[in-house]
Amino acid sequence: MRTLFNAEMSELADDLIAMARHVETAITHASDALLTGNVELAQTVIAEDAALDELEGLVDERCVLLIAQQQPVGLDLRTIISSLRISASLERMGDLAQHIAESARRAYPASAVPESHREILEGMCAAAKEAASETVRLLETRDLNVAAAIVSDDDNLDALHSRAYKAIIDGSYTGSPQETLDLALLARYFERFGDHAVGVSRRIVYLVTGDHSGDRSKI
Amino acid sequence: MRTLFNAEMSELADDLIAMARHVETAITHASDALLTGNVELAQTVIAEDAALDELEGLVDERCVLLIAQQQPVGLDLRTIISSLRISASLERMGDLAQHIAESARRAYPASAVPESHREILEGMCAAAKEAASETVRLLETRDLNVAAAIVSDDDNLDALHSRAYKAIIDGSYTGSPQETLDLALLARYFERFGDHAVGVSRRIVYLVTGDHSGDRSKI
Repeated sequence: MRTLFNAEMSELADDLIAMARHVETAITHASDALLTGNVELAQTVIAEDAALDELEGLVDERCVLLIAQQQPVGLDLRTIISSLRISASLERMGDLAQHIAESARRAYPASAVPESHREILEGMCAAAKEAASETVRLLETRDLNVAAAIVSDDDNLDALHSRAYKAIIDGSYTGSPQETLDLALLARYFERFGDHAVGVSRRIVYLVTGDHSGDRSKI
Repeated sequence: MRTLFNAEMSELADDLIAMARHVETAITHASDALLTGNVELAQTVIAEDAALDELEGLVDERCVLLIAQQQPVGLDLRTIISSLRISASLERMGDLAQHIAESARRAYPASAVPESHREILEGMCAAAKEAASETVRLLETRDLNVAAAIVSDDDNLDALHSRAYKAIIDGSYTGSPQETLDLALLARYFERFGDHAVGVSRRIVYLVTGDHSGDRSKI
């Protein structure tokens, strides 16, 4: 019975890693589509989001069945409940990557990245890709140094988000209303992406250390 | 044992209603602060969000303890898991109300609502208040007509969100970059508020009817 339970817990962990890899691909492609104006790449991100939603459904169902059939307590139960939360965050990260891809597609054949904000958006793309690849690694290794790196990426995203908005209200900005709208939303999507990555990392830190103090994150 | 369990399930339901009432107050005050430029009212919404976060923590803890101690199965287990999801959505709705209040505060003593968008934002405030008060009622009554009304409010918010963006890119719009930024975000906050209300309503519909088909909502 315990062996079966352990095998199922291990499959649950693998499902979360599969979801995180999907998110990593989505944000990598969405970022590249945004920076290069590649509409076909944007389209693949948008088309593939449904697969992530499906994975989330499977994880949720597995969690409920595991609780019902195995009646876990203690750390096992907390791991399953955390998995439910993590799958919701990963699904949301996929949605945000999709929104970024939609921005790239909407702007095509123009670029959604005006020169005034190119450097900032390049920074956001890089930080979001880092956060996504570290999320995969954290779920694989539960290495707390990786969790700390995700928090640092999120700090970086917050700082860039703030710079993006300051550059809009700065007197020298000359973007059109459409550009301003796109930038406002893009910066927001990246900032939220970082928040969700931190949410995932805090749940893993809690499972590893039992420290719940960072868990009032807004995810 | 069963009597105790039923009492605890009833307390869990009461906690969710308390959270929903908190959200209703927050969105009502945030909307009024936004439309009237009342900075003190905005401040109360911002200050009181911590209480909602605390309620979410209590609900989550209660859910985990209920599962660990009572080992529920079937509908009871699904109700508890749904309660975890609903508390996350309600907490997020509170955050969005807080963001709306922050917009009102940031713009003060000017208004965050330019004349070009007053009617649209009045409509969004009204629809969001409706959705919040119906969310309370749905949790109290589990009346499926109320769930349908929430979906209709969300449709209304989506349409207004789309109108808000169209009015920005319409050639006759003359708002400043700061106004455009504020409007882009405000419209997004209201639109997400509606999404989360629909997320709550779908979980209740599922518990009442067993129909899970609407549950791939993006919450």
